[in-house]
Amino acid sequence: MNRNQYDNDISTWSPQGRIYQVEYALEAVKQGSAAVGLRSKTHAILLALKRSSGELASYQNKLIRIDDHLGIAIAGLTSDARVLSNFMRTEAMKSKIMYNRPLPVYRIVSAIGDKSQVNTQNYGRRPYGVGLLVIGVDETGPHLYETSPSGNFLEYYAISIGGRSQSAKTYLEHNYESFADADVDELIVHGLRALHATLQQDKELNTLNCSIGIVGQGQKFEMIQDVDLQRYLDMLGPQGTGDQAAASQGEAPMDTE
Amino acid sequence: MNRNQYDNDISTWSPQGRIYQVEYALEAVKQGSAAVGLRSKTHAILLALKRSSGELASYQNKLIRIDDHLGIAIAGLTSDARVLSNFMRTEAMKSKIMYNRPLPVYRIVSAIGDKSQVNTQNYGRRPYGVGLLVIGVDETGPHLYETSPSGNFLEYYAISIGGRSQSAKTYLEHNYESFADADVDELIVHGLRALHATLQQDKELNTLNCSIGIVGQGQKFEMIQDVDLQRYLDMLGPQGTGDQAAASQGEAPMDTE
Amino acid sequence: MNRNQYDNDISTWSPQGRIYQVEYALEAVKQGSAAVGLRSKTHAILLALKRSSGELASYQNKLIRIDDHLGIAIAGLTSDARVLSNFMRTEAMKSKIMYNRPLPVYRIVSAIGDKSQVNTQNYGRRPYGVGLLVIGVDETGPHLYETSPSGNFLEYYAISIGGRSQSAKTYLEHNYESFADADVDELIVHGLRALHATLQQDKELNTLNCSIGIVGQGQKFEMIQDVDLQRYLDMLGPQGTGDQAAASQGEAPMDTE
Amino acid sequence: MNRNQYDNDISTWSPQGRIYQVEYALEAVKQGSAAVGLRSKTHAILLALKRSSGELASYQNKLIRIDDHLGIAIAGLTSDARVLSNFMRTEAMKSKIMYNRPLPVYRIVSAIGDKSQVNTQNYGRRPYGVGLLVIGVDETGPHLYETSPSGNFLEYYAISIGGRSQSAKTYLEHNYESFADADVDELIVHGLRALHATLQQDKELNTLNCSIGIVGQGQKFEMIQDVDLQRYLDMLGPQGTGDQAAASQGEAPMDTE
Amino acid sequence: MNRNQYDNDISTWSPQGRIYQVEYALEAVKQGSAAVGLRSKTHAILLALKRSSGELASYQNKLIRIDDHLGIAIAGLTSDARVLSNFMRTEAMKSKIMYNRPLPVYRIVSAIGDKSQVNTQNYGRRPYGVGLLVIGVDETGPHLYETSPSGNFLEYYAISIGGRSQSAKTYLEHNYESFADADVDELIVHGLRALHATLQQDKELNTLNCSIGIVGQGQKFEMIQDVDLQRYLDMLGPQGTGDQAAASQGEAPMDTE
Amino acid sequence: MNRNQYDNDISTWSPQGRIYQVEYALEAVKQGSAAVGLRSKTHAILLALKRSSGELASYQNKLIRIDDHLGIAIAGLTSDARVLSNFMRTEAMKSKIMYNRPLPVYRIVSAIGDKSQVNTQNYGRRPYGVGLLVIGVDETGPHLYETSPSGNFLEYYAISIGGRSQSAKTYLEHNYESFADADVDELIVHGLRALHATLQQDKELNTLNCSIGIVGQGQKFEMIQDVDLQRYLDMLGPQGTGDQAAASQGEAPMDTE
Amino acid sequence: MNRNQYDNDISTWSPQGRIYQVEYALEAVKQGSAAVGLRSKTHAILLALKRSSGELASYQNKLIRIDDHLGIAIAGLTSDARVLSNFMRTEAMKSKIMYNRPLPVYRIVSAIGDKSQVNTQNYGRRPYGVGLLVIGVDETGPHLYETSPSGNFLEYYAISIGGRSQSAKTYLEHNYESFADADVDELIVHGLRALHATLQQDKELNTLNCSIGIVGQGQKFEMIQDVDLQRYLDMLGPQGTGDQAAASQGEAPMDTE
Repeated sequence: MNRNQYDNDISTWSPQGRIYQVEYALEAVKQGSAAVGLRSKTHAILLALKRSSGELASYQNKLIRIDDHLGIAIAGLTSDARVLSNFMRTEAMKSKIMYNRPLPVYRIVSAIGDKSQVNTQNYGRRPYGVGLLVIGVDETGPHLYETSPSGNFLEYYAISIGGRSQSAKTYLEHNYESFADADVDELIVHGLRALHATLQQDKELNTLNCSIGIVGQGQKFEMIQDVDLQRYLDMLGPQGTGDQAAASQGEAPMDTE
Repeated sequence: MNRNQYDNDISTWSPQGRIYQVEYALEAVKQGSAAVGLRSKTHAILLALKRSSGELASYQNKLIRIDDHLGIAIAGLTSDARVLSNFMRTEAMKSKIMYNRPLPVYRIVSAIGDKSQVNTQNYGRRPYGVGLLVIGVDETGPHLYETSPSGNFLEYYAISIGGRSQSAKTYLEHNYESFADADVDELIVHGLRALHATLQQDKELNTLNCSIGIVGQGQKFEMIQDVDLQRYLDMLGPQGTGDQAAASQGEAPMDTE
Repeated sequence: MNRNQYDNDISTWSPQGRIYQVEYALEAVKQGSAAVGLRSKTHAILLALKRSSGELASYQNKLIRIDDHLGIAIAGLTSDARVLSNFMRTEAMKSKIMYNRPLPVYRIVSAIGDKSQVNTQNYGRRPYGVGLLVIGVDETGPHLYETSPSGNFLEYYAISIGGRSQSAKTYLEHNYESFADADVDELIVHGLRALHATLQQDKELNTLNCSIGIVGQGQKFEMIQDVDLQRYLDMLGPQGTGDQAAASQGEAPMDTE
Repeated sequence: MNRNQYDNDISTWSPQGRIYQVEYALEAVKQGSAAVGLRSKTHAILLALKRSSGELASYQNKLIRIDDHLGIAIAGLTSDARVLSNFMRTEAMKSKIMYNRPLPVYRIVSAIGDKSQVNTQNYGRRPYGVGLLVIGVDETGPHLYETSPSGNFLEYYAISIGGRSQSAKTYLEHNYESFADADVDELIVHGLRALHATLQQDKELNTLNCSIGIVGQGQKFEMIQDVDLQRYLDMLGPQGTGDQAAASQGEAPMDTE
Repeated sequence: MNRNQYDNDISTWSPQGRIYQVEYALEAVKQGSAAVGLRSKTHAILLALKRSSGELASYQNKLIRIDDHLGIAIAGLTSDARVLSNFMRTEAMKSKIMYNRPLPVYRIVSAIGDKSQVNTQNYGRRPYGVGLLVIGVDETGPHLYETSPSGNFLEYYAISIGGRSQSAKTYLEHNYESFADADVDELIVHGLRALHATLQQDKELNTLNCSIGIVGQGQKFEMIQDVDLQRYLDMLGPQGTGDQAAASQGEAPMDTE
Repeated sequence: MNRNQYDNDISTWSPQGRIYQVEYALEAVKQGSAAVGLRSKTHAILLALKRSSGELASYQNKLIRIDDHLGIAIAGLTSDARVLSNFMRTEAMKSKIMYNRPLPVYRIVSAIGDKSQVNTQNYGRRPYGVGLLVIGVDETGPHLYETSPSGNFLEYYAISIGGRSQSAKTYLEHNYESFADADVDELIVHGLRALHATLQQDKELNTLNCSIGIVGQGQKFEMIQDVDLQRYLDMLGPQGTGDQAAASQGEAPMDTE
Repeated sequence: MNRNQYDNDISTWSPQGRIYQVEYALEAVKQGSAAVGLRSKTHAILLALKRSSGELASYQNKLIRIDDHLGIAIAGLTSDARVLSNFMRTEAMKSKIMYNRPLPVYRIVSAIGDKSQVNTQNYGRRPYGVGLLVIGVDETGPHLYETSPSGNFLEYYAISIGGRSQSAKTYLEHNYESFADADVDELIVHGLRALHATLQQDKELNTLNCSIGIVGQGQKFEMIQDVDLQRYLDMLGPQGTGDQAAASQGEAPMDTE
């Protein structure tokens, strides 16, 4: 009610020290479809729901390859995400040309943060309406970051963004201690279970509605989708069981293997 | 009611993470006359109603040739469409001059998306009020995209935009599985039926009120209109029958062949 | 009532996908004095009422020569029209100097459209408050276009703009089929009748209050006014008769020859 | 009442297609002191009331010489008039230097119109608050134009602007047919009578409160004021008579000779 | 009341053709301390009250030397006055360097007018809040001008600006006819009497609270203040008498010698 | 109440000719801690209360050295003061480099005034929120100026700014006549007494809460603080006595020696 | 209530001489997690709580190394802090390259202040929402500064910023006199006790939730975290005791060793 005199303008503080326009942009991220990221000592993976625009279009892939060592999952405004992914590709290319090395993961994530911050301080712009999960491998090993419209970013062992991501986070919190030493197949199964937790009760993961991105030491960024997904879905076992359990428990933690 | 304090300005988020001005621009697309696009393994076609400005003007063609391998259908503000089509022609020409190759379809669609996104983030501009169906052929085969004022774009097997396009989509959803292997004549008949579904009950397609654009592997973009249309209209059979069925069914799916 | 929060700013969409400031600018065109255009296979002509500013000034001519092959009639803000006509003259001159050929009619009309569109999308400008009828001859024959504050333009067989132009359009719709093969004198008589239909009941066309512009294949743009008009007014027959008929019929179609 | 949401901003159309800020600027012209212009076949003259700022200042002359062949009378904001007169002098000088000829009258009037139009279309400026009567002689003979804050301008046989100018116009309308063949003395007497008609009932023209500007074929622009005026005032006959007649008739037409 | 929707913005006309922000700036001039100017055939002088900021500061001199032949008195915002006086000094210096002659008085006053006008037409600026009396001598003799925030300026025989200047004007109006032939001492005595008329009833002119500026043919601009003033104050006779008379007469004319 | 429609914007005049935003900025100066300046024929000194931010910080010194011959005391926003002091240092340095002489005091004070004035006339800036006391010595002797957010500045014999400065001014007004011939120690004692008058009743000056700046003919700007202050505090005698007297007398003049 | 007409815009003063937007930005600092700084004669240290974003992310470190001799702790918006820390690193690097010396601490703190001040005076920007504690060593020894969104900065013996920092300040005020001669271990223990005071009653410091930064004469900036912290936490003794004492005493001073 009273707050609305401070929430129209990105360059206006509220009396409580909040910038409402940034908070509103975060809502756009929550309306995207869910994505999940996990990291072991050697690999980092992304899993995302594809958003369907009906039968006439292919599902929209929410995973994007940036470079051999870098990939992202997006949640929020697709067109804003494209601006940021184009920016990342350009930066990755510049790094190769100018420094003859792959762009360190922290550096590109930090550049996204700086680019996003500018839109939170200057009148006449709006914050980006998209959150990213960024995975990559560099000299310091595999990494998983989340970036946000505020310009903030954080490194995670495992994380989920987008719609109903809280359910995925609950699963990840119960299982993340085993991720460090997991092999890629184990990571993927954990990731699929977390992603499955974001589905509505009567929905199942299948080869059309999700995709996986993998990058690791000695492994270039690679996408797994369509029929190649079946192998991993088969590992997942009956999804319905877990679902019913979750449903009866509301937002309670998912059962783990 | 309450939302209107957030809907005057393109650079303002609503508390729910929406950008109302983008949504309002989408309304302009819905007010355009209908266009339909379909794609087989070898060809992509566009069909559009010409908008009549009365007897004194020729019907307004909503199909525009961009290059030998590229064409568009428009729905929404004609003057905004002209800005975008001029941009596309310039980009196509630059590609030929600089890279000595036809502009890949994804690339031009992506450029339209980026150009549109800019108008969704900066104060003092308005989003474009036009949606495009883009067909084209490049090394990866025939393509059909829809672009929107939001800066989003999607690839489709078949799609329709503009006024009453939901009726066309319903027809396409019931028939799209046969498009991949259809020959050009079959594609056109499907397209005409879909387009016919967008007409008011007492209207018929004729050689004056619609036009067709075709591009394919080994076939440059070509427009079929006026008397040349008769051959295809003849294939269509009595239009009235389907119409009455649709009318009695409201927005229900059209009968298929 | 409710709409007015969206109608102050050219860069704001209404929830219905309309840009009210463009629509308001169109009202300025309707307040101009009437102009009429007609086209045969060989010629295109313009006819316009001169607006009187009282006895002390000469009547204001609403026809403007742009180039040997180009002329316009204006309805709306005279000072805005002057901006556009200056622009057209400059473009025509550039075409001669750079390409050594007369500017194609479609090209200049399209340039007017683009110039007008800019003023419909950027905050801090207003749309032009003038509509133009453009006639011209080029390699593709004679042309007649109408341009509008929205940036739109259309080609016509015959058309009228400005105050009470609906009456002229009604006449033209009843007669346009004969224009294609009409000779210049016939075209002019049709045009004068259409123009006469826009007059209030007690007014007559005379050598002072109207003017004619003609361009054709092998005929440079030429203006007919003052005493030279008498020959055509004489062909028109008694104007009063038609007028009374129109008056008794409201906006009903004028009797045709 | 209702209109005021459209009348604060020069770049906003009202729903009726009006630009109120331009109309308001025209009010400033009406508040200036009156000026009168007349034209014969060989000469054009201006007559203007000087505005008194009290005994301590000399009367403010409202006539300004621009060039040997050009002069103006102003009504409205003096400081805006100075901007325009400086502009005219610069243009006149450029014409001499670049083209080695006096600036044609139409050309400078048109340039004033274009300069004024810019201020009617761009946010953050206001229209000029001054109207000009421009007299000049060029190869096409003597000319008399009126320019306005809207960017419009018109050529006249005779005209008056500023406060109570309607009374002068009434006089001019009754007499203008004789101006074409009048000699300079006759023109001046007509002009003084028109100017006198703008005075309040108890005021008389005298050598201090008015001035005359003359330009003609073979006669450079020249100002007549102070004692030199007496000769013409003497020709005028008793002013009081006409005044009383006018007073008893309100705004009714003045008696003519 | 109703007018305030038009009085916040320098680029907005009121429906009556007024620019309120300019009128408001004129109020700032009226709040300055009084200054008086007089002119004879050979000399022009300024007299101004110094404004006291208490015992701890010297009185603020309101007279400023611009050049050997130019000086000003100010009323209104001191910091705005400094901007204008710096501008005048720069212009005077440029004239000497570029044209090797003293800047003509009309020219500098006109430049002040143009500089002030800009601030009355462009959004985001405010009009200057200061009025100037400018005295100077050039080839055409001595001059006295008043400039105003509106960009207007006028030449005067004698004038007063600032607080209670109406009383000084009344004195000047009763005596100005004798100024032309007065010698410098007589001019100064008239000026002091006029200045004295602006004082509150219980105040007297003394060597601390006023100052005099003189420029003339063959006499460079010179300031008289402090003890040098006593000679002129002595000529003035008992000030109280005149004061009481004035007080009893309200704003009625002062007795003259 | 009513005035607030004119007090949000630095470029808006109130109907009474006031610029409220400038007046509001002056309030920020009054909220600073007090500073005092005095001048003799040979020296100028500044005395200022240090503002305490608690025990953990050293007291904030309000005196700043600008150059060997220049120093300031500040009251108001510290960060604004830093902008101005940096500007002064740069100007002082430029003077040395370009003209090989110390910057005259009037010149730097005038430059501060001009820099401040800009922020009182242009939309989108705010006036500086700081007042300065400037002391300095140049060829014309020692000087003491006060500058203000309005762009005004004045030279003083003695002055005080900041919180409760009225009490200090009262003391100075009773004693300033003896300052001209005072030696430095006497000046300092006067200054400390004036500064003491600004303290709340139960506060005393001590070596931590105040500081002194001195500049004079043949003496570079020097700061006296901490233990070096004790010598002067000892000269001051028992402060309490004077305080109680002042307290019992409200704002009445302090007793003098 | 009434004040809100002055609190939306950084370039607007309130009638009381306040800039509310700066004050609101200070609230953002108070919402950050607590940080503490202390300084001895030879060293300066920082201690900060790491903010937890849940189990899936590592704790967010609030200490940042700038250069070998410089480090900061942040409280407030992380993305704003990154802008400032990037700026500091660039400045530090420039100093090394251009002057071949480490950047003096005062200079970088002053530059932060100036950069922050700009955002408090210009429309369309917002003040930074972050406070910094800056420690560093240069030729003048170790330093500890606090910077704020207002552009102000202060040097401290010891200080705390962020959430519940008042409790830490109370501890520091009771103990700061012993810091000057403390060795590094003693400083750290004091710092940990102050930091512990900011925790809620049931929280304890551990190796995961805090970190320490040290810089000193002859010691480059170094961070202590994770297991290396245990040695110092062991020195701290049972935290609970102090906590309960503090809790029972509200905001009363912590017991000191």
